[in-house]
This record gives sequence, C-alpha cells and structure tokens, in this order.
Amino acid sequence: MSTVAAARRVLVIAGLGNGSGTGGSTARLFSRAGYSVALVARGADSVEKIAKEINLAGGDASAFPVTSYGAQEISDVWGSIRSKYPAPNYTINAAVFNLGHRVWKNFLDVTPTDLHESIAIHVEAAFSFAREAIITFKANEIQEPSGKRGTLIFTGATASLRGNTMTSAFAAGKFGLRALAQSLSKEFGQDNIHVAHTIIDGVILTDRLLELRPEFKGKPDISVNPESIANAYLYLVNQDRSALTWELDLRPAHEKW
Amino acid sequence: MSTVAAARRVLVIAGLGNGSGTGGSTARLFSRAGYSVALVARGADSVEKIAKEINLAGGDASAFPVTSYGAQEISDVWGSIRSKYPAPNYTINAAVFNLGHRVWKNFLDVTPTDLHESIAIHVEAAFSFAREAIITFKANEIQEPSGKRGTLIFTGATASLRGNTMTSAFAAGKFGLRALAQSLSKEFGQDNIHVAHTIIDGVILTDRLLELRPEFKGKPDISVNPESIANAYLYLVNQDRSALTWELDLRPAHEKW
Amino acid sequence: MSTVAAARRVLVIAGLGNGSGTGGSTARLFSRAGYSVALVARGADSVEKIAKEINLAGGDASAFPVTSYGAQEISDVWGSIRSKYPAPNYTINAAVFNLGHRVWKNFLDVTPTDLHESIAIHVEAAFSFAREAIITFKANEIQEPSGKRGTLIFTGATASLRGNTMTSAFAAGKFGLRALAQSLSKEFGQDNIHVAHTIIDGVILTDRLLELRPEFKGKPDISVNPESIANAYLYLVNQDRSALTWELDLRPAHEKW
Amino acid sequence: MSTVAAARRVLVIAGLGNGSGTGGSTARLFSRAGYSVALVARGADSVEKIAKEINLAGGDASAFPVTSYGAQEISDVWGSIRSKYPAPNYTINAAVFNLGHRVWKNFLDVTPTDLHESIAIHVEAAFSFAREAIITFKANEIQEPSGKRGTLIFTGATASLRGNTMTSAFAAGKFGLRALAQSLSKEFGQDNIHVAHTIIDGVILTDRLLELRPEFKGKPDISVNPESIANAYLYLVNQDRSALTWELDLRPAHEKW
Repeated sequence: MSTVAAARRVLVIAGLGNGSGTGGSTARLFSRAGYSVALVARGADSVEKIAKEINLAGGDASAFPVTSYGAQEISDVWGSIRSKYPAPNYTINAAVFNLGHRVWKNFLDVTPTDLHESIAIHVEAAFSFAREAIITFKANEIQEPSGKRGTLIFTGATASLRGNTMTSAFAAGKFGLRALAQSLSKEFGQDNIHVAHTIIDGVILTDRLLELRPEFKGKPDISVNPESIANAYLYLVNQDRSALTWELDLRPAHEKW
Repeated sequence: MSTVAAARRVLVIAGLGNGSGTGGSTARLFSRAGYSVALVARGADSVEKIAKEINLAGGDASAFPVTSYGAQEISDVWGSIRSKYPAPNYTINAAVFNLGHRVWKNFLDVTPTDLHESIAIHVEAAFSFAREAIITFKANEIQEPSGKRGTLIFTGATASLRGNTMTSAFAAGKFGLRALAQSLSKEFGQDNIHVAHTIIDGVILTDRLLELRPEFKGKPDISVNPESIANAYLYLVNQDRSALTWELDLRPAHEKW
Repeated sequence: MSTVAAARRVLVIAGLGNGSGTGGSTARLFSRAGYSVALVARGADSVEKIAKEINLAGGDASAFPVTSYGAQEISDVWGSIRSKYPAPNYTINAAVFNLGHRVWKNFLDVTPTDLHESIAIHVEAAFSFAREAIITFKANEIQEPSGKRGTLIFTGATASLRGNTMTSAFAAGKFGLRALAQSLSKEFGQDNIHVAHTIIDGVILTDRLLELRPEFKGKPDISVNPESIANAYLYLVNQDRSALTWELDLRPAHEKW
Repeated sequence: MSTVAAARRVLVIAGLGNGSGTGGSTARLFSRAGYSVALVARGADSVEKIAKEINLAGGDASAFPVTSYGAQEISDVWGSIRSKYPAPNYTINAAVFNLGHRVWKNFLDVTPTDLHESIAIHVEAAFSFAREAIITFKANEIQEPSGKRGTLIFTGATASLRGNTMTSAFAAGKFGLRALAQSLSKEFGQDNIHVAHTIIDGVILTDRLLELRPEFKGKPDISVNPESIANAYLYLVNQDRSALTWELDLRPAHEKW
C-alpha cells in the first residue's frame, strides 16, 4: 500500500495594486494558511515585490505579470499558472478576481473611454478570468473536507447594488460583474464549484488611501481593513458544499448605510 | 395679447424590430396620443414601413435608420432628429430605449463576441442614447402639466434583476443597463428629468414569437401584449413630477415568479 | 336577444384620514372614473364627511365606519359592503388597503404597544382585509377589458424595503405587509386577481403635513401629491391581465434616494 | 501591577429543538471554541439534555427553559442569564435568535392563529430577545480583538426575501424579523454592536428531517448541515469591527435558486 501526499492547494489572485490592499492581504493570508499563491497583476515590479515578500516569509508565491487584461492574455497567464502548478502535486482550487476600475464622474462627463475601461475590467476581464477558473476547477476532483472542486470569489462594492449620481459608468461595470457571479453560482453549483461575490461597503484602508486621507489612520470603525476582507475570503473558500454563501457584505461598524 | 400655440411633443424610440413588438406598439400609441414619433432602428426597410403605417393612420412618424448603434451614429441620428423637430414648434420630451440583444447560452459556450454584442447594445448604446436624450431634455423648459423636462424609459427584463444559468452574458448587459437607469434617475431628478426602467417578466407576444411558439396565440394570461407595455410607457411619461416611478415590473397574470 | 346593462364597478378603500391624503384622493378619482366607492375608516364623522362630499359632486360613495381593524370587524364591514353593492348590478373589483401606523423611535424606546400597533395595522388588518377582498374577487366573473377578476393594492413606504435607525417597529410591519402582497400576487395571479404594492418614497402632501411643515406648500418637486398616487392606483386597476405590475415606486422629482 | 484574567465569553442562544439542528450545533461549536453557553428553549427536558451533553464533553452549558416566548418571560430569562454569568468573570458577547415557526398553507387556509403564532415568534419574541441582547451588549466594554461589544445573529430563510404561494403568514413574520435585524444593524453599529441576519436557503439536515425524508441522508449537496451553519455563526461573531457582514446566505451546492 502506498501513501499519497495531499496535493498542495493553490490560490490564483488577480488585482494586487501595490500589495497594501485586498489582493496583497489575501495573498499573504492564504500563504500563511498553506496555499501556494499565483499573483496576477499589471506592473511586473510591484507583483514581483509582493511575491518576494511572501517567499521571504516562508511562503510560495509566484508573480504572473500581465500588460493588459485582454482575453488572450488572461488565457495565457492561466496556462502558465497551470504549468507551474500541475496535478498531482498541486490543486488550483481558489481564485479571486479583485480587479476594479473606479470612475467617479457626473454622467455628462463620462467619456466613451471611461465606460469602455470600466466594462473592460469589470465585465470582459471578469468573464475571461472566470472562464479559466471554471475550466480549471472542473478538471479537479472533489476536494475534502470542503466537498468542492474550487471556489471563485469576485470583489464587489456598494456600486454593485445601487447606481448613484456619480457612478453610472462604475456601477454599470460592477452590476455586470455581479450578474456574472450570480449566473456562475447557479450554473456551476451543480458541479460543486462555489462562486461568491462580496460587497465591500466602505473605504478600504490601503497605503494610497492613507496618503490621500490620513484621517483614516488607526480608525478601524470607519474603514475596511484589507486583512479582514482576506479573512472573509478564506472563510468562503473553507465553506463546505452543504452551506455556500453567494453574497456577503462587509462594512465598518460606523458606516452609514 | 398674442397666443402661443403649444409645441407638439415628440417621442424618440430606438429598437423597433419588425414593428410587431414593444417598439412598434409604443410608437403607435404615442402617435394616437398626439406625439410625433422619431423611429430609430437598424434596417431602413422595416423602420420606413412602420413610419408609413403610422402616417397613413394620420400620425406624424419619421424613420431614422442606422447601420449600427455606435456612439457616433447615435449622436448623429439625435442631431438629425433635433433638426427635424426644432423648438418652438416641437418639444422632444419622451425617449424610449428598447434595444436588446438576447444571448441564451451555457457560460462556457459564451464567446467574446456574444459578450461584446450584449455589452455593445445594453450598455454602450444605452449610454450614448441616454447622453443625447439627457442633453436634449436639459434644453427644454419644464413642461405642463407634468412638471418635467422629459422622460427617458429603458426596457429591462427578468435578467435585469437575476443572473441565471443560461444568461451570464445577457444578464451582464441588462444589469449594466439597470445601473445606468438608476444612476440617471438619481442624478437628473434634480433637473425634473424622469428616468424609468421596466422589468418585462414574460415572453412578449410578437409576430416572431407566434411563428416559433404558436401556442401563445390568444393567450393573454401567459404572454405580454406589447400594447400593454406601450400603455405603461405612456403612463410613465404622463406621471407628474410629484410622483415618479423609477422601476415598474410587468408580467402576465399566470406567470410563475 | 336581450341586452345586459354592465354592472357598476365598486372600489373598497380602507384608510382615509381626514380625506386630504391618499385615501381621499383615490376615492374621489375612482368616483370620477365611474366607480361607486365604499369608504372604510375609523371615525364616523370624517368618513361620512368624505362620502358626502363625493356624493355632492355627483358620485356614489358610502361610509363604512369601524371602531377598530380587528378581524371580525373587517369581516363584518365587507359583509355590509357586499350587501350594499350586490351582483349583478355591482361588481366589487378594486380594493385599496391604505392603512398605516407610523412609529418613529429609537429601538430601545419602542414599547410592546408600539410594536403591537404596527403589527395590528400593517399585518393583521392587512391579512383580514386581503382575505375579504380575495374571497369577493374570486366570486367575480372575469371583467372586460382588463381580463381580471379584481385588483388589490397595498400602500407601502420606503420602510417596506429598508429597515433604518428609527424604524424597527414601523419597518417590521411594512416588511410584513409587503410579504403578504407578494405572496398574494403569486398565489392569485392564476385566478386573474391582480395584487400590487406601492412604495411611496417621500412625504405625502396632506393637510396635516402642511400644518406641521408649511414649507412644503406648493412644492411638488419635494412632496408627493396624493392625487398623483391616486392616478397610479387607477392605472394599476386598469392594467390588463397581460401586463400586471406587482410593485411600483413613487417619489418626487427632487427626492434623494 | 496586577494581571487581570480575561473574562470568559458567553453565548446566549434561543431555539434549540431537540438539539440536532442549528441551535444545538451552534451551542456545541461555541462551547468547543471556549464559550459558556446559555440555552433558551421551550421544553425543559430537551434543553437540559443538550446542556448535559455539552457539559459531559467538557463545556459549560446551562439550560434556561421557558414556557413561552412572551416579552416578560424573555426579559426574565435574560435576567437569570446575566445573574448566572456576571462581570467581570464573564462577558455575554454573542446571542443567536434561532426561533422559527413555519406555516405552509394556502392563503385562504391561514387562520388568525397561524398568523398570530408566526408574528409572535418571528417578530414579537425577536424584538424582546433583541432588546435584552442590545441592553446587555451596551454594558460591555469593547472586546479585543474584535473591537465589538457583542454580536447578535438572527436566523432567516428564503421566505425572508420572497413571499410565495404557500408562505403568506410565514413570510410576513420572516420579513418582519429581517426588518428588525437591518434596523438594529444600522442603529447599533455606532456602538460597535454587530447585528447580522442569515438566509438559510435549503432544508436543514435535522433528525426530524431525516425521519420524514430519509432520502436526504448523507447528501450534503442538497441539504444544509447544521454544523456548517454553526461555522458561519462563529465566523460572524469573530468578524472584527472593520468588516462586518449584515447578511449572509447559505445554501447547498446543488440547490436551485
């Protein structure tokens, strides 16, 4: 009788900024939880810096920089990730689509480019990323103890639920992303693939936010800590097939809503 | 003392098919209600036939055929409509965006083209059409008795509210359209411009439906009569500034929901 | 061949205040549209004054005062209404439940009585009223041209959709009312009974509001004219079976939402 | 300088059935996580049996049987719980309202008693329970590491979001409960009190379900494991103030929705 070493689990995450926000925190938390992490982002310097930091801390992270989020490039990068983390040693069973492109403008100031960029990221890139994640997960065996083949998480925002005066282009994209997530959840639940969508309802405490708005420093009641979002993502990935969450909102304690 | 003849009201409507559906019924009803109607659609033959029919019935309809719904062409066609129906003899105070592009496919069968076409119609064309309608309405005086400068209506569907197994690409577009409509409603209410969105939850009884599914013939309990949708649109346009509806659902009496 | 005179249609409406709000406007509008109106309210003086006013204007209104909205009393009053307006001369085919009991308190100040009163009106009285309306409508033939046996409308509010800091008791009742309306819509659509729910999102311009807040006088952009609500109710009652609205929101043009 | 031993945390949970469902699983999980658990239920035998089982497993559980869920009795039982678990040795910082009363009937078969019982449990008992939980939490210091004074969770269902043909009385209660939960979340977030609502969308795998429907045995893809719900509740209680979830849905992987 031979023993089979369990495959090492792999998270693919797209959208990392400078590493101080949701993407970076999620990568670090999953690394600490025993995942290899495949980091997809524009800007090779930044994503390689994050990978290096995780590896120095004893994790296993790889940078997969892209120059754009076009369909072909997303397909190619997933191909590279699958090559880097092949079965049976690895199982890619978690994917987070964390890209966003915020447009905050009165409607009459929205240009075709603004709209196009919002759609290109929130809808077109999301469809491409989802396609690769679903194809990858469908090839997995059902994992234990979760009873799932994989978990795909999309990061949403207040604008995923409500259009508002300055958000026509942003909300059009975020609504579209939510439609995709819900459709996938219903279609691939039958295959024990878990698709979830989160509503981040509040400002996220990144380096960049602190530069622009230093008054948020040390105020966890009014801003969202990216590590808390990462906790939510790990909880979702750990949910078992008997009780899957499709949508989860996260907001600071003092947020008006 | 001089008397001023009231300006004749004008409806602009985009999306007419062969004239047997929502667009055609709306054009005919508004014509009977005293509106001039500007008909925007692909396919010059069809739209000219509808215009002719309305004119023979004593109305005033003009065909504005387009070859595509790109931003420039939509802008141009609105320019032509404004030239054809200038103040002070005319007031363009109603616009209906009735375009749709249905995709009904399993997610993994959705091609980039499918997604692109859904977005091009439901989001990009809607943004362009809305831009022209809003700019046109903002130039109007407040009309009496409605107290509004204009009413812009978007036709939605069940897929505007819920993603489902076969509707990822369709729902992504329809959710995006709804986000636009809600954002506009909130931004331009202040200018007494009324923006509404309808949820048509059921099959619409068009010629084409009857060819494919003759069992719907004469069954008003299970299919939506386009004339009833037109009634809803005229009701929305007639709502006064004190009580505006943002979203209205319409379904046949026996529809399961 | 004998001709049959069409039955006169009857509206039953509960909740009339002093007649200056939604209930009074609805009664007057339906009377002008050819309905007999059965007015159900607490306070015999007020409801008889409204009936008298409508009758002086050439309508046919009858007062059905109640001392409370308990199940038995609602059942009794509907019995009286059916006796007063029997087939075949009359058809009771429209009913409006316009009762409300507003509680605006911090949660810890809500007393059991506050909660009980909100529930007694918004839920218990609504169930009793709906029961009688449904039983009455089920006995009707399908009416032409609507193709319906009857229409039952419930008046809701912003608090029907969202709980908020001061509205725990009020929203608990209004949410419950909405649940009832939606359940009825789904169950009795099969019987061609139309059940609709409205969301009045804004202050209603009644005598009482003008006393308390005279700044609303003559400001149709920021307050809801009860006559406009009545127009919406008549539109809903006139909708045909092919395109029924379950929920319709109404708000003034300048309302923030 | 003296050291202060951390207070032991206490969960109060109401609604335990025979211990095989959500309530029992939650009590056992929180016990294993180091909480004392105060068990509130009708039926002294059953609740004492559950307490005994937890205590035999090394936990600290106490039974607080009630004969009804009237306001006075709920107030009294919370008084007893506070006496049993006083500061500074204990901190009552978690409460779960898990009561439910399912009515599954055609509308015309719903009796006043059916409606009254649904409201008495889902609305009136919930208000009473929430009042005591909020008062108790407000007296707490902010706890570390969560940064919260306490977490109050309400168990909801599909009928919390949608009325349906057989659920008028049940949904009226569940909608009301959801309104309460949302109102509390908005009002007491400012006090670092976390209020959450869950949507359990699927059958829960209890002893009783297995008796009635043995085909669910060993089918985690089509029924909700109460232990998975308990995991969700512990996750919610552990969320920190920076990222609180108001509503979380849970459904089995193969559930149609």
